[in-house]
Amino acid sequence: MKVAIMGYGVVGSGVASLLKKNYDQIVKKSMQTEMELAYILDRRTFPGDPNEHLVMADYTRIVSDPDVRIVVETMGGLHPAFEYVSACLEAGKSVVTSNKELVAAKGYELLKIAERKNVNFLFEASVGGGIPIIRPITQCLAANDIDEIAGILNGTTNFILTMMIEKGMTFDEALLLAQRNGYAERDPSADVDGFDACRKICILAALCFGKHVYPDEVHTEGIRGIQLADVDYARAWGGVIKLIARAKRLAPNKIAALVSPAFVQGHSQLATVDDVFNAILVRGDAIGDVVFYGKGAGAMPTASAVVADVIDCAKHLERRKFFGWQDSEPDYIADYLDIENAVYLRVTAEDPAAALAAIGSTLGAVQMLKRENAPDGELAFITEPITERKLRAVLAEIPAAVQSMIRVTDY
Amino acid sequence: MKVAIMGYGVVGSGVASLLKKNYDQIVKKSMQTEMELAYILDRRTFPGDPNEHLVMADYTRIVSDPDVRIVVETMGGLHPAFEYVSACLEAGKSVVTSNKELVAAKGYELLKIAERKNVNFLFEASVGGGIPIIRPITQCLAANDIDEIAGILNGTTNFILTMMIEKGMTFDEALLLAQRNGYAERDPSADVDGFDACRKICILAALCFGKHVYPDEVHTEGIRGIQLADVDYARAWGGVIKLIARAKRLAPNKIAALVSPAFVQGHSQLATVDDVFNAILVRGDAIGDVVFYGKGAGAMPTASAVVADVIDCAKHLERRKFFGWQDSEPDYIADYLDIENAVYLRVTAEDPAAALAAIGSTLGAVQMLKRENAPDGELAFITEPITERKLRAVLAEIPAAVQSMIRVTDY
Repeated sequence: MKVAIMGYGVVGSGVASLLKKNYDQIVKKSMQTEMELAYILDRRTFPGDPNEHLVMADYTRIVSDPDVRIVVETMGGLHPAFEYVSACLEAGKSVVTSNKELVAAKGYELLKIAERKNVNFLFEASVGGGIPIIRPITQCLAANDIDEIAGILNGTTNFILTMMIEKGMTFDEALLLAQRNGYAERDPSADVDGFDACRKICILAALCFGKHVYPDEVHTEGIRGIQLADVDYARAWGGVIKLIARAKRLAPNKIAALVSPAFVQGHSQLATVDDVFNAILVRGDAIGDVVFYGKGAGAMPTASAVVADVIDCAKHLERRKFFGWQDSEPDYIADYLDIENAVYLRVTAEDPAAALAAIGSTLGAVQMLKRENAPDGELAFITEPITERKLRAVLAEIPAAVQSMIRVTDY
Repeated sequence: MKVAIMGYGVVGSGVASLLKKNYDQIVKKSMQTEMELAYILDRRTFPGDPNEHLVMADYTRIVSDPDVRIVVETMGGLHPAFEYVSACLEAGKSVVTSNKELVAAKGYELLKIAERKNVNFLFEASVGGGIPIIRPITQCLAANDIDEIAGILNGTTNFILTMMIEKGMTFDEALLLAQRNGYAERDPSADVDGFDACRKICILAALCFGKHVYPDEVHTEGIRGIQLADVDYARAWGGVIKLIARAKRLAPNKIAALVSPAFVQGHSQLATVDDVFNAILVRGDAIGDVVFYGKGAGAMPTASAVVADVIDCAKHLERRKFFGWQDSEPDYIADYLDIENAVYLRVTAEDPAAALAAIGSTLGAVQMLKRENAPDGELAFITEPITERKLRAVLAEIPAAVQSMIRVTDY
């Protein structure tokens, strides 16, 4: 059987080298006698690379070779990945991808083609890098009604927050270090503004709740606004600030989906997820909370997930896995302003006593937080669960300027 | 299709109620039109139970009914579970079990029968309760060479240790509380002496490394000897004491396997696993460390894993999963005395200065630990990695009495 790789970057070359390194067990577990890496699609050339002779730029050669049964897409981006993957599926080949942008935008369409052509479209590597999550959700937790899923899905922002928490760096200092370490792009927006995490929670929400969730339907806040003062208050509260992507079932045909910084209790399994690691919490009606933790990115972890999918495809060449979801529909995603959360607030007031009195009379019992060297007039506290819509209305009545507003999780 | 349950205790009745609660999605994910719970085997009667009419005591009725395609074994214990499960497999029925004692003792034999009869023998619930671990290891991490697996696999001991760490209870006090809460048996030996964790690591080691590991081949130490002094020193070192079961590949045909209390660093994902929760760390050559966390016991979490296996069996009625291992062989398990570990030691010496000098000259650089209110003559320290055989020889030369000796992990 022949396998092709489209996109010979970090992940694609990792897949090629893992296929070679653990070849015997991969072939055995695939129930094949052999597995030949036959084509690598890339516009670049790779002089001196062991697979140099396989690299070519014409994707139709892959599509038209009937011996290619499995295509790995590790190009990233939406175009031309979507066109190439569609063509491969239409040609009756199974496709394995690590491309979260593709799955988040086009997963529903591509799964429909795969279903029609009786082949597989698998994407374990698109969320959480090498962490097993897609298969555990669809198979191991199949007996559960899943109520909620939440995770630290972006390693770059988690690294930045870890540096702010552990080393006292500012956001700008930590971002610079992340860029120096190769964890952040020169334009870090996709990571620090939450878009990457957003794509991943869209995929997880679709799997857990059965309908496609498009990234632009999900309210997304990044971490640029996090100050060391907030880190200090989180510590005083007994926790840490993490960028949490989450989706929750509200009613049979209604979910909440949100990406934002959040306070996480110190004893939570999510609180100790540091540096570039990822973790995903799934809350099921039978199982309770389960957490999956590991490396969310990197050549070999991601290749590990891709190759596991390749093995699965090779074992079930002609069978569609029970796997898929319906298209989105209007009003399926709740307005984030109507989601209830406890909220951390840091405000400054010219007359703190008056502000406190107003807080007490509008928000009721709040948990006040203290930090050393707080400037005069700074107040920080945690509210009871409240919708953001209601909170905003209330805040207008409080004589204080809001400096920070961060949701508080119960994980 | 008919399903039977053998053993209507906590887990068996949980399976019955989960099958009913989430019936529609279970049937759909099983790719069946219906799934009938047809028999419940138990010697007891259950007046007033909704399934009272299904309960009967003759297992041959299950074996001889050709419409029963899947049998759930939740009786526990080795006999007659082994005979019943064998008979069901021989009759061409797939079997799903939560019985770790059965799998640890007879897994190889039962997998052979299943293979011969072209049916499935699945046991996700036998390790880590509802935590997905068997399927992630065999499928999601299939592209990896697994180097090591380690976990907190027993909730009872983890609860006891958590109470010692967080509440300062002695072992006896914490055990009593565990018994009052229903977490520990009146005879707590299977839990506190490590036998339960041992069975589970045997199953995981067989899956990861390919050969059956029998519980009596695994050196097993429980937590009865843990003193609050050791808990304090672990805290001073920056970590906690956990009962860790682990297995590690030493050479292509040699593994280490061990159950014992261990020092775990505070920043480890295993350190924050509290109360009756379980967690399992898998170290693969491509993926690095991944950790799976959740409820390791309880009716519904365990039923969640059992029913996931039932769904899998229903989808693949006639197909053996790629799943299994060879029998054990002599010298496959290394002598635990030859395994290298950093070790924590607490000793008492009449002449501490002389003891310290002897420690320095025999063990070289050790990390000394301090605690408040230590009695005169108490010394505590962490060695460099050393085999236990060598350590024992060295200790004979040190003029001090060993009070505690606990391995130190690097997770």
